[in-house]
This record gives sequence, structure tokens and C-alpha cells, in this order.
Amino acid sequence: MNIILIDQAEIKNNRVTLRDRRSGHIRNILKSACGDTLIIGLINGPRGTGTIVNISGETVELETCLQDSFPNRPPTDLLLALPRPIMLKRIFSQAATFGVRRIFLINTARVEKSFFSASLLEEKSYRPLLLQGLEQAVDTMVPEVHIFKRFRPFVEDVLPTIFTDCPVRLVAHPGHFPFLPQSITLPLTERTVVAVGPEGGWVDFEIDKFRTAGFRIFTMGTRILRVDSVVPALLAQLSLLRQINRESAV
Amino acid sequence: MNIILIDQAEIKNNRVTLRDRRSGHIRNILKSACGDTLIIGLINGPRGTGTIVNISGETVELETCLQDSFPNRPPTDLLLALPRPIMLKRIFSQAATFGVRRIFLINTARVEKSFFSASLLEEKSYRPLLLQGLEQAVDTMVPEVHIFKRFRPFVEDVLPTIFTDCPVRLVAHPGHFPFLPQSITLPLTERTVVAVGPEGGWVDFEIDKFRTAGFRIFTMGTRILRVDSVVPALLAQLSLLRQINRESAV
Repeated sequence: MNIILIDQAEIKNNRVTLRDRRSGHIRNILKSACGDTLIIGLINGPRGTGTIVNISGETVELETCLQDSFPNRPPTDLLLALPRPIMLKRIFSQAATFGVRRIFLINTARVEKSFFSASLLEEKSYRPLLLQGLEQAVDTMVPEVHIFKRFRPFVEDVLPTIFTDCPVRLVAHPGHFPFLPQSITLPLTERTVVAVGPEGGWVDFEIDKFRTAGFRIFTMGTRILRVDSVVPALLAQLSLLRQINRESAV
Repeated sequence: MNIILIDQAEIKNNRVTLRDRRSGHIRNILKSACGDTLIIGLINGPRGTGTIVNISGETVELETCLQDSFPNRPPTDLLLALPRPIMLKRIFSQAATFGVRRIFLINTARVEKSFFSASLLEEKSYRPLLLQGLEQAVDTMVPEVHIFKRFRPFVEDVLPTIFTDCPVRLVAHPGHFPFLPQSITLPLTERTVVAVGPEGGWVDFEIDKFRTAGFRIFTMGTRILRVDSVVPALLAQLSLLRQINRESAV
């Protein structure tokens, strides 16, 4: 927990009283004392500092100062064939740690339909995982999560409209396709959406639909990765492609 | 398990009898039958195919054909301040999945000394994790693991000699340092070693020693990542930098 995230509704007169794991973290891990100043952030708002004004039993009271600017929303959207819950759990917090603006979880031919009844798809289940990812990364901007249970309506009605502000659209697919650096213009500066298929991959019909929606198909190489490795790998790679500048490129 | 890994000692007259989780995987997950052909690989040797000649109770017997060439050893070495065991466990299999040649686990000022007594540092504990990573990635080349309990002898006696065949030497460190693409010559083609510090980072003395040994310091950005996220992120980024060619770079 590298930042203490606070909900707007918790703050009254620039004070917040923490009683949950945030309080435990401050008392038992940071071993902070009255007068200490901590990095805090308003969920979906600015970062700032919190000064401890009272520690009593299991509660910690902070005086908040939230005058920093809002963090930028990350420039990357993630579109995933719904993975099995055990993978998705890791992916929620990884995605928030590496930074994504929106997460789209969709159905595809090879998604096991039972995954859509997982309790993890309820906001009250996944939101704490997103917050944990943000706490790690010192970010406050919670990724939006959108869930689509039917592929065809998603791909025909939603896909053409939802990524109009993402000029770079990519879909990962095994096979003889260009690598990621050959699929974009370097340096990467624009908003990007990257789509990752299910175990067993996309079917041809799905790939055609992505192509029609302006997605470029790329391959990550010959090593087979689990989806909970693909997501951090791709987010780290896209982040790296944004770090390349004209001077560093040959 | 995308490849069935077999030890040389298990093969007699081009036949191998499997009784462990590999047999379970073939029978229960792949649901293979006699006559089916599977992707197999000799540990630290070539890949090939195995034809099922007998399934009886919990055993599966394969006829082996190992005529493929040896996979190349990955061009990347990983040097890690020894992480806590729960992280290291994930890192062993991730490193093997993403592909590393050698893993160096070293002591530093901020490594908790008790981590060196973890049973995970015994080969019989970590080898199965490395093999699981290879089984995922369809590779056969087991990363070498080297453990150094004292920093100064490592850095003064070992470091200057051990990376002579790694022209690209990098150390990740938070702060005002260049990003990875500005720290190397693109496209990346040479053998590379990348060093990752402990929770809390390297101390100045350690950074100086790395500099003396020809390491360049780079930063991954402002988001704080756990070491079990840093490792897949860096390995994926280095792999991407090898995919960049002159045509794709600006």
C-alpha cells in the first residue's frame, strides 16, 4: 500500500477516520505516529497528503490536503475474452497496477460460459482488487470495467463506436503475424486498445470482426503465455513503446 | 503443460513410461489415446514428438522421437536481490516462461537475511517451478540458478568476470534516470543482463559497484511495481526490444 486511497464520502471537514485495513497498514506496517504525513489520494481524484491527527485503538484520523492535480488516466484500454476467475482475479489488480483506462470483458466462441456467473464479475468483488492495484502503483484513477455477455452484439453494435478515441487498435493472436513494433507507428503516442483472446485463441470469425473494426493483428512470439502473464507483459510493452523517442530509435 | 518434458535418464530404447503428473495430464486433461502424438522435449535438449504406445492404469508409455534441434538458450540473464519466498516462487516459473538463461540471486543491504534460509533455495524446491514455466512456454532449456549470500565478494570477485559475454548490462532503479529504450542501442541484439533491486531499492554503494562493472542505470517509470510484476514486465520489454528492427523504428 504505497498510497492511502480515500473515498470522497469519507471526508468531512478535511478529516477522515480510517478503521479498516488502511488503518491497520498505517499502525502495523508503517508504524506511523501522530504528526506523521502520508501519501493519500482521493479515489478518481487528486493525490495529496494526510497528516495523522489521532490514533486511538483501531482507528486512525487524518487531516487531508488534496491539492495535487488529478493523475492522468492511462492511455490504454484492455479488451479480454473473459478469463477463468482465478486468472481474472490477478488480472484486475495487475491491470490497475500497470495502468489501464478501461477493461472490457467479452464473450467469445472459446470462453467457457460458466465464467460469466462468477461472483468476481460483481463490482463489489472486483473493486477491492482494482484499488489494491492502484495502492501499489500510487495511482487514484480506477479502471472502468465493462462486461459483454454476447459477442455478436458487442462486436457489431459496440465495437465500432466505443474505440473511436483509440486510434491504435491491436489484437494479439498466435501465428505468422507481425510483432507489436511492426504493427504500430513508433514512437507510440496515441490512445491504444489491445485485445487478448481466450485459452485456445480467437476463432476466424472473431478475427475478421476485429479487422473490420480497424484492429491490427500481431503476435507476441512463439512462447505460449497464460493470460495472467500476457496482460502484464503487454501493458509493460505498450508502456515501453511510449518511452521510445525519436532520439532513441535507430 | 504445452510440452511433456522428459529427463534423459527416463528414456530407454526410445521409450519412456510416465507415472506422475505428466501421465495425469495426458490422460485427464488431454484425454489422449493410444496412437496419439504429443509434443515432448528432452530437458536441456531437443524437442520432438512422443507417440502413445500404451496407457494402463496410471501409466502412459511413449515412443520418443527427438530429432528437432536444441532450442536456443534465451539471451537474457536476470540478477535479483533475493526476494521474499512467496515472490520468488512466482518469479522462478515466470522467468522460465518468459525465458532467461541464468538467474542470479544475491544479497544486498536491504535483503532480509532470513530469506536465505528459505527451503525454496534448494534445487529440489525450485526446479519443479522452473520446469512448470518451461512446460508453459514449450521450452526445454532450464535456467541456471546461482545464489550468492554475500554482496561484496559477489560484486568484487564474481560480477567483473561473470558477465563478460553480456555486452548489455542494465540495472533498474527508481529516480531520475533514462528509460530502458534510452539506455541501450536499438535494435537490441546482444546478450543482456538486467538487475532488479530489493523492496526499498539498491543503496548508493551497490549502484556504484554496478556502475563500475559496466551496468547502466534505468528507470521503469513512476508506477511502483512489486518484484513479481517487475520481472515479467522487464522480460517482456527486453523481448520487445529484440523485435524492433530498423524498418519499424522511426
